[in-house]
Amino acid sequence: MDKLVSLCKRHGFIFQSSEIYGGTGSVWDYGPLGVELKRNIKDHWWRVMVQSRDDIEGLDAAILMHPRVWEASGHVAGFTDPLVDCKTCKGRFRADKLEDARCPQKPSKRPGEWEACALTPPRQFNLMFKTFMGPLEESASVVYLRPETAQGIYVNFLNVQQSTRQKIPFGIAQIGKAFRNEITPGNFIFRTREFEQMEMQFFVEPGTDMAWFETWKAERMAWHLSLGLDPDRLQYHQHTNEELAHYARAAYDVQFDFGGSLGFQEIEGVHNRGDFDLTRHQEYSGKKLEYFDQPNNRRYVPCVVETSVGADRVTLAVLVNSYREEIVEGETEGRTVLGLHPALAPIKAGVFPLVKKDGMPEFATKLAADLRSRIPVFYDESGSIGRRYRRQDEVGTPFCITVDGQTAVDQTVTIRERDSLRQERISAASVSEYIVTRIDR
Amino acid sequence: MDKLVSLCKRHGFIFQSSEIYGGTGSVWDYGPLGVELKRNIKDHWWRVMVQSRDDIEGLDAAILMHPRVWEASGHVAGFTDPLVDCKTCKGRFRADKLEDARCPQKPSKRPGEWEACALTPPRQFNLMFKTFMGPLEESASVVYLRPETAQGIYVNFLNVQQSTRQKIPFGIAQIGKAFRNEITPGNFIFRTREFEQMEMQFFVEPGTDMAWFETWKAERMAWHLSLGLDPDRLQYHQHTNEELAHYARAAYDVQFDFGGSLGFQEIEGVHNRGDFDLTRHQEYSGKKLEYFDQPNNRRYVPCVVETSVGADRVTLAVLVNSYREEIVEGETEGRTVLGLHPALAPIKAGVFPLVKKDGMPEFATKLAADLRSRIPVFYDESGSIGRRYRRQDEVGTPFCITVDGQTAVDQTVTIRERDSLRQERISAASVSEYIVTRIDR
Repeated sequence: MDKLVSLCKRHGFIFQSSEIYGGTGSVWDYGPLGVELKRNIKDHWWRVMVQSRDDIEGLDAAILMHPRVWEASGHVAGFTDPLVDCKTCKGRFRADKLEDARCPQKPSKRPGEWEACALTPPRQFNLMFKTFMGPLEESASVVYLRPETAQGIYVNFLNVQQSTRQKIPFGIAQIGKAFRNEITPGNFIFRTREFEQMEMQFFVEPGTDMAWFETWKAERMAWHLSLGLDPDRLQYHQHTNEELAHYARAAYDVQFDFGGSLGFQEIEGVHNRGDFDLTRHQEYSGKKLEYFDQPNNRRYVPCVVETSVGADRVTLAVLVNSYREEIVEGETEGRTVLGLHPALAPIKAGVFPLVKKDGMPEFATKLAADLRSRIPVFYDESGSIGRRYRRQDEVGTPFCITVDGQTAVDQTVTIRERDSLRQERISAASVSEYIVTRIDR
Repeated sequence: MDKLVSLCKRHGFIFQSSEIYGGTGSVWDYGPLGVELKRNIKDHWWRVMVQSRDDIEGLDAAILMHPRVWEASGHVAGFTDPLVDCKTCKGRFRADKLEDARCPQKPSKRPGEWEACALTPPRQFNLMFKTFMGPLEESASVVYLRPETAQGIYVNFLNVQQSTRQKIPFGIAQIGKAFRNEITPGNFIFRTREFEQMEMQFFVEPGTDMAWFETWKAERMAWHLSLGLDPDRLQYHQHTNEELAHYARAAYDVQFDFGGSLGFQEIEGVHNRGDFDLTRHQEYSGKKLEYFDQPNNRRYVPCVVETSVGADRVTLAVLVNSYREEIVEGETEGRTVLGLHPALAPIKAGVFPLVKKDGMPEFATKLAADLRSRIPVFYDESGSIGRRYRRQDEVGTPFCITVDGQTAVDQTVTIRERDSLRQERISAASVSEYIVTRIDR
């Protein structure tokens, strides 16, 4: 993980937020390559979940919502971690994670290990960030930064259904930021206080919910595989009765093996939430949230099957999955490769002149400019050709195109494939088509 | 505007946030069509500003930043509105906008109009939303929701420059949410407390800043025209000395004429900010933010030319610009049209069977499914064909394809163009290509 964090900073995938000020706790910024990688993942999700289907509608609800939403959802009362204070060192720790905590006065010791430790009984601490809307700092204007995007979908259920005239079963999907004031965030972008979710809520007729739950469980695993994640690093984890939220009828996590001390961890949750959410919002808002089933002339509150992915976690999974160090046959120096799926790679091709003379830079610059209107490419003329290849290997670029002495003769270039290291000679005019057909899914 | 707000709700462009709870003040949610329209606008900006150029890098910095950032930027001290309290009615009003305010006790009267009004002297009220990070609610952990995305770019200037090896002049661009606790928000999505910015900061050598300022002023106007905004509704507004921020060397707004009482209003700002921002962050962070100009062997703090667009404002401008009601020649009933640029339209084509028999629904359903893998289409078989056309006119769909009796004979369909109402007969197999060539820029 340390090597990956270092590569991410060096090549502009991910920087620590406000680094010049010493950083902001567990908040990260996506750099030039990171923003494109994450965009490619999000766009792929949007295409698969929304644009390629006629039974799922998109939504982009605001982060700030009416505070009653979080009473109805149960977050005001129950979205808490138990905390204890130490009267000796004044530290504050999660009561259920004391073994991971460190005493601020004696970092080598763990709270609870010494007699001097004076821990208070656990108190519940709410994980929602709160702020104040309007010019008065009083309780009437308290609003929360949403801890999940799902509630924006539930409260808009009828707005979406009526404006699109969708019939059940149908879904509503959205991508957006959420915030949790985690006490113990960490592991790079795995658990952060500001994160991005890709959530889809599928509204179904009661009684059909378990069948739809199974369908979505399978669909979502297929999506993770389509990113190029190693099947051996993916597994389902079924929630036990203790893990299951009180309203949930069934829940599976999709877990990815991040390796090291992290191991298998949740990257997506698939939940059968029953009719809990819409029923609660009916109750708290006083507005009916029923669906009218015209053919059968009856009204009911739909059940919800939820699929909820962390965009940052999937991005991390994709990075971890693709990182490798290897010795190339016949070479002494090793290379580091991000073996990203070509559709996800931030840069699709590096374009290089073999040397900085004989018109090669001019030809390569023009080729890069032509390609750029269609695919993201990177022009590089600095350093040895081997070093330029290695740089593109490290950021996951699937192809490298080199303009050489032969190019001026017959308008051909070499094209090198990142993983196989195979080189072909093709006409410069066909490069664009060559790459597009190989990066399309 | 009222008609547009109503259309936006009816067709699922924009809903009031948390509407079932009575709404959240001046916060809005984008519905199924709104999210696609806004995505198309944002993607166009990203393509033009980042992906099609080799001198601008993308970034996605977090909303939560180190609090010192906002001291350096001047927001903690100076991002304020002057407020007065009325001791009689307990209302709070903007001192500089008293003429627009209404007394909460007597809404027909304006504060200041009666002798009974007891207004306090103006006090400065900070517009940043503040919240608390970490488990302790004390001043050490106060963080702000960013009121602009620009600072995320400044603090990452060297991270981006070094990881990409860009040479000055170059830019950093980002799209993201920002928050301002406005006292008097309003006008639909024009001024909201939560909004999305598309900002680009271009770093240049001191002395070249005014030339770059002129370049970007022209480039950005061209971008707004490329959205299909009416040239007569666009103008520059040059900041007077009174309007100019103390650090700014020159500033122009791009204004759009929203009509009605709103009139010409800012949708984008182009600013020559000099070296103010990087110099302040150097000072507050104690970290050098200088660029090393290798050929000339000198170090300097670059100047910044900023282009800052409101994504929601541009979306509103596009909606206002495209909304029209008209009488079609030879028809008695009028129609409402969103004359959106085809590249921005959320749905590119409606696909209809003329009647629900003779295999037409089956043919049309299959055609719609085939098209959907390439372009967003909407299948509709309910109501008269005229009504289905009108529905697509209202949401800005540029083409409608009808499967009729002739289709079974020769595999042709009619294709109707939204604005000219011209209908052509073309082969069903060529529909995809027909549309793609007409929506591409």
